[in-house]
Amino acid sequence: MLKAGVLDPQGKAIGQALHHLGFSGVGEVRAGKVIELELAETDPATAQAQAEDMARRLLANMVIESFRVEIAP
Amino acid sequence: MLKAGVLDPQGKAIGQALHHLGFSGVGEVRAGKVIELELAETDPATAQAQAEDMARRLLANMVIESFRVEIAP
Repeated sequence: MLKAGVLDPQGKAIGQALHHLGFSGVGEVRAGKVIELELAETDPATAQAQAEDMARRLLANMVIESFRVEIAP
Repeated sequence: MLKAGVLDPQGKAIGQALHHLGFSGVGEVRAGKVIELELAETDPATAQAQAEDMARRLLANMVIESFRVEIAP
């Protein structure tokens, strides 16, 4: 996700489109990416560390984006 | 997320880039979108139904994409 405070024009456009469709109770909208990875690693803590390393080195732009890792069983 | 079986070139490119960086234990990679919405609705079941309606009518392309709604407290 873009960090709080970073302008998110895609989120703004989605919010406006939802209002135009009649969804009136919609406040702030933020758009981001989700990346699902199949990992050979079976230890959850090691897999989490690997995924965080991938995010820092390639997947996220740490200047303007934050990331969160979730391990699925 | 793109449905299983729909070609995901962005996911493939991310997988190749991770391999080039030395992450060898990476299998299938799929890329998708996440959209965070602030809703005025306070009932979780109604909020869930609203979000599913938004996804079907605007946010997801139901021909090639699947979606999942999670309600955060």
